[in-house]
Amino acid sequence: MITLWELGGRDDRRYSLFSWRTRMALRHKRLDFHSIPVRMSDKAVIAFSGGKTVPIVKDGEGDGNDFVVRDSWKIAEYLESRYPDAPTLFGGAIGQGVTQALNVWVDRVLVLPMLALIVADVHERVDPADEHYFRESMEKVLKMTLEETRTRRAEAMSKLNRTLEPMQALLKRQPWIAGAQPAYADYILFSIFQWARVMSPHEVLEEGPLRDWRERVLDLHGGFARS
Amino acid sequence: MITLWELGGRDDRRYSLFSWRTRMALRHKRLDFHSIPVRMSDKAVIAFSGGKTVPIVKDGEGDGNDFVVRDSWKIAEYLESRYPDAPTLFGGAIGQGVTQALNVWVDRVLVLPMLALIVADVHERVDPADEHYFRESMEKVLKMTLEETRTRRAEAMSKLNRTLEPMQALLKRQPWIAGAQPAYADYILFSIFQWARVMSPHEVLEEGPLRDWRERVLDLHGGFARS
Repeated sequence: MITLWELGGRDDRRYSLFSWRTRMALRHKRLDFHSIPVRMSDKAVIAFSGGKTVPIVKDGEGDGNDFVVRDSWKIAEYLESRYPDAPTLFGGAIGQGVTQALNVWVDRVLVLPMLALIVADVHERVDPADEHYFRESMEKVLKMTLEETRTRRAEAMSKLNRTLEPMQALLKRQPWIAGAQPAYADYILFSIFQWARVMSPHEVLEEGPLRDWRERVLDLHGGFARS
Repeated sequence: MITLWELGGRDDRRYSLFSWRTRMALRHKRLDFHSIPVRMSDKAVIAFSGGKTVPIVKDGEGDGNDFVVRDSWKIAEYLESRYPDAPTLFGGAIGQGVTQALNVWVDRVLVLPMLALIVADVHERVDPADEHYFRESMEKVLKMTLEETRTRRAEAMSKLNRTLEPMQALLKRQPWIAGAQPAYADYILFSIFQWARVMSPHEVLEEGPLRDWRERVLDLHGGFARS
């Protein structure tokens, strides 16, 4: 039995981009899991993990031999080595190495522009108990108020789409980020669009191959990420 | 027998970044090759390939059954499928797909900032017959004169290094771009630094993991890229 601790928002939303990487990896591996929503401001309920961030995965029967893994990248590595006979996330050592390069690029280059674009919408949909904590920490990161971010949407949208241009070009050459078939690399990039999709009423992508690809990812695993 | 057509500069320099991807891929596959320098302004000598750009690889005995492949990415794909028993460039389909993502990112995001930084130095070292052609085409691409690029070196250097930040972060986590061992992903990124190394007397990288990694790539295959 696998348990996934992850951020929970209003109306039972699951909105952490990092937990979406884990969710898609679990479905890719054909593993069922039980989700436990966690408030961003409540670190006590996840203290058992030894850390302060979700996602956290616990895998086991509760018999004292459970594996507890924290951090979406480490969880993906864990799933790949623990379930080698299920469909592969990385396709071997080189695939894993280059996928980590993509992971670092997405985290360092794409997350912040996307945050700047959707942060005010996200704020309206986090757990009410997290609203204050969320505003305070995000305004610090972005160095502006949530209200200011609303007036700069067009600028943020154009910056985000400029940064995504290499991925548009890539998807003219191959149907998935990982090539002919989807793999963990796809879920990494998808996670930032799913974050926006779950938490914002606005379309964040200009028309193009990337938008078509996002729809294909939404169709994967029985339309898992659509629901 | 493999023949490689590639740009040749002064003093027998081989300076095309794309041909360095091919050179490293050939050495990785433990294949010997014969290099034919081509002038940038001379399209006639490569017309046999059906295109106007190098690198071009011809593989065969000249018996009418030769393979002619153009474009560094296509050459890498060709070598991987033609020589499956030699060390792998991609490590399988997913590795190949994600490596193509890196390839597109390097070409679309890194080549231009590097060009802006070294273009005047490159101009001094191309084949004298190419000087005029090179200046004209590069000034068009960069929308400024070669002389202007010299006055903007600091700005170009800072822009390049900012764009490289995710790769610095990656190389704190793993020794090679492709993970635990070098592969084609490493040669793609290396090619832009080798271009600078062959054509410019200036160091283009700030101190950090990326500079250390570049030295490790230079040591590969018996120090092949150092000489």
